[in-house]
Amino acid sequence: MTASALPGFAPGRTLRPSAKVLPEHARNHNRALVLQTLYRTGRQSRADIARETGLTRVTVSDLVNDLIAENLIIEMGPREDARPGKPATILDIDRTAFQIVGIDLSEHALFTGAVLDLDGTILSRAEVALAGSTGEDAVAKVIALTDTLISATTAPILGIGIGSPGVVDLGGVVLSAPNLGWKNLDLRSRLAERFGHPIVVANDANAAALAEHSFGGADGDLMVVKVGHGVGAGLLLGGSPLFGSRFAAGEIGHVVVGTDGGALCVCGKRGCLETWLSTPNLELAIGLGRASGTHTDRVLTEAGQRLGIALAPIVGALNLPEIVLSGPTELLDGTLIAATVETLRSRTMAEFHGDLTLRMTTLGQDIVLRGAAVMVLSGQLGVS
Amino acid sequence: MTASALPGFAPGRTLRPSAKVLPEHARNHNRALVLQTLYRTGRQSRADIARETGLTRVTVSDLVNDLIAENLIIEMGPREDARPGKPATILDIDRTAFQIVGIDLSEHALFTGAVLDLDGTILSRAEVALAGSTGEDAVAKVIALTDTLISATTAPILGIGIGSPGVVDLGGVVLSAPNLGWKNLDLRSRLAERFGHPIVVANDANAAALAEHSFGGADGDLMVVKVGHGVGAGLLLGGSPLFGSRFAAGEIGHVVVGTDGGALCVCGKRGCLETWLSTPNLELAIGLGRASGTHTDRVLTEAGQRLGIALAPIVGALNLPEIVLSGPTELLDGTLIAATVETLRSRTMAEFHGDLTLRMTTLGQDIVLRGAAVMVLSGQLGVS
Ligand SMILES: [Zn+2]
Ligand SMILES: [Zn+2]
Repeated sequence: MTASALPGFAPGRTLRPSAKVLPEHARNHNRALVLQTLYRTGRQSRADIARETGLTRVTVSDLVNDLIAENLIIEMGPREDARPGKPATILDIDRTAFQIVGIDLSEHALFTGAVLDLDGTILSRAEVALAGSTGEDAVAKVIALTDTLISATTAPILGIGIGSPGVVDLGGVVLSAPNLGWKNLDLRSRLAERFGHPIVVANDANAAALAEHSFGGADGDLMVVKVGHGVGAGLLLGGSPLFGSRFAAGEIGHVVVGTDGGALCVCGKRGCLETWLSTPNLELAIGLGRASGTHTDRVLTEAGQRLGIALAPIVGALNLPEIVLSGPTELLDGTLIAATVETLRSRTMAEFHGDLTLRMTTLGQDIVLRGAAVMVLSGQLGVS
Repeated sequence: MTASALPGFAPGRTLRPSAKVLPEHARNHNRALVLQTLYRTGRQSRADIARETGLTRVTVSDLVNDLIAENLIIEMGPREDARPGKPATILDIDRTAFQIVGIDLSEHALFTGAVLDLDGTILSRAEVALAGSTGEDAVAKVIALTDTLISATTAPILGIGIGSPGVVDLGGVVLSAPNLGWKNLDLRSRLAERFGHPIVVANDANAAALAEHSFGGADGDLMVVKVGHGVGAGLLLGGSPLFGSRFAAGEIGHVVVGTDGGALCVCGKRGCLETWLSTPNLELAIGLGRASGTHTDRVLTEAGQRLGIALAPIVGALNLPEIVLSGPTELLDGTLIAATVETLRSRTMAEFHGDLTLRMTTLGQDIVLRGAAVMVLSGQLGVS
């Protein structure tokens, strides 16, 4: 297993046959297929897997033997059933054989991390206060947090996944993360050199979208809008993250919303989505009304409407089935979401978008951590 | 060759390994790879193809022999060069062996069609006036036009490609095309039964996007905005068309633009993109000023700005490298495009979108016809 083998993160969509199918491609594909089947269904015999995948018994047996040798699959013993003859041996992914380190750099004041098992369940947590650190100081805090988390693992490490704010390229270079003062920072290489484990670094909202797909019940086509100190989105189309021509897909926080002005944004424009929707701006606007319920409702309704105005052309262009919001539930859930839904309804064609789902994530604050785990699972095992 | 084998039109993007790699998959993939190489480069020997594709000489020879038997590849004779030894035989796609029928149903007053060769060059044309026909009358006109075009072919027909307005599913059923009075019309089956050739039916703007990619110099990530009686878009991501959850991706004509009102639209909403940008509305607005240059400029500038306002969130979400406009050059090119570019610049982040290209198509009015040919090439040969 190497850090460079990240099939789930390769931009593999092309109309054209771009490379021949080599035997080892087929083998890797089939290996991932066996792991995927067992990962999703659990507890199956070699014959079950052959039936499920359409692979021959011989191929499945060969692959399973290799995967047992790699400690990824374990034999659970004979199947207990009434069928005559020798009972089949039940196999499963050894969900305790490896652990994953997941790190979320997207919170404003602190970096959070967790050790997760192969099912994405969080086993232990750690965090480090950012205390205004930027640049190399912030990198040092990522390294310290990673050290702490590695110490907390109780099984071999499958890989380390990191969700970073800003624009991250496919090689794990943070091209731009203004809040952390990072520009063209090769975070993946820095950590790979330091720790020697496979490392995946991706945009936090992209990680969130993967988490929502793998653990949050969303299908393969969705957009996660992450609301925090900034506002960003992650798009999954056909199960694959969309990166964009300069890896900046989903950067909707500084798109101007509406044609009636708006507040001055940190970026210099007026009326960017963040001026209406970022957590600090929402809290500021609510605070100005000294906690009157009517005033709060008005602020949240307007923020929800602005989100709807910004999303309407995207929904129209992509015909998305599902949009998921991630961020402070007390601000987003209820009034704000209702206003967004109503605005989308009034600004797009109900015929095509009437069944669009807009909802809060079910993964809470762990969405990026769990997405980071999905990136490692996808990159190292081809499962998610 | 069957009408159901349409690899270029299958929604094949998924993070998960969804099916095993069978030997015949590898063979079809490699066959398409050989055809693709020869289609794009032209005039190569078996050894050239092997080098280019990474396939073995034996595999290439087997595939080439089959393709010669299918009349898709021809031997052009020995290579004329100074190298010692037996000269290699030069091969090429037989670009005259088959012809394609392409049909564009998206014009307001008439259906147009063409016979094209395998390079997408138009060999002959035909058209039929719509004269207000809808429903079955309009279907009869499609059939009559197809008949005329088939009579005009001078080689076996590879397939028939049709770009239809409205929402079209992956099976060629026109789910909704209000202007033609079509709802859940299985146009593909109707024509397949009647003509017996492979038929592909897709949305006109999706066809246009494929044409722009194959013949117009665009890379695999682009959006074509088609301006005519209605306004619609076709999106290509990683070379594949995006269809959307209800096959309505690109239907941006009835998205409301701005927060300052606008004219009443046929759909009942106010300020839809079509109210600013559709050809009849543009001509009406220009006509009201009795052809004063200043007035015309103002109308075109405002339409361009509205297009920019609608596109800004899409550009932000997708980080698109290229947007291509198709429609009347005298209305779109110049003032209108300049206003769209300026609006996009002022409403998105220059850092990520500063190198976005916005331009007119180079394919003129034939964009849908040629896109229809691409759909047939992609579906029948795996090339484009
Ligand atoms: Zn801004
Ligand atoms: Zn409308």
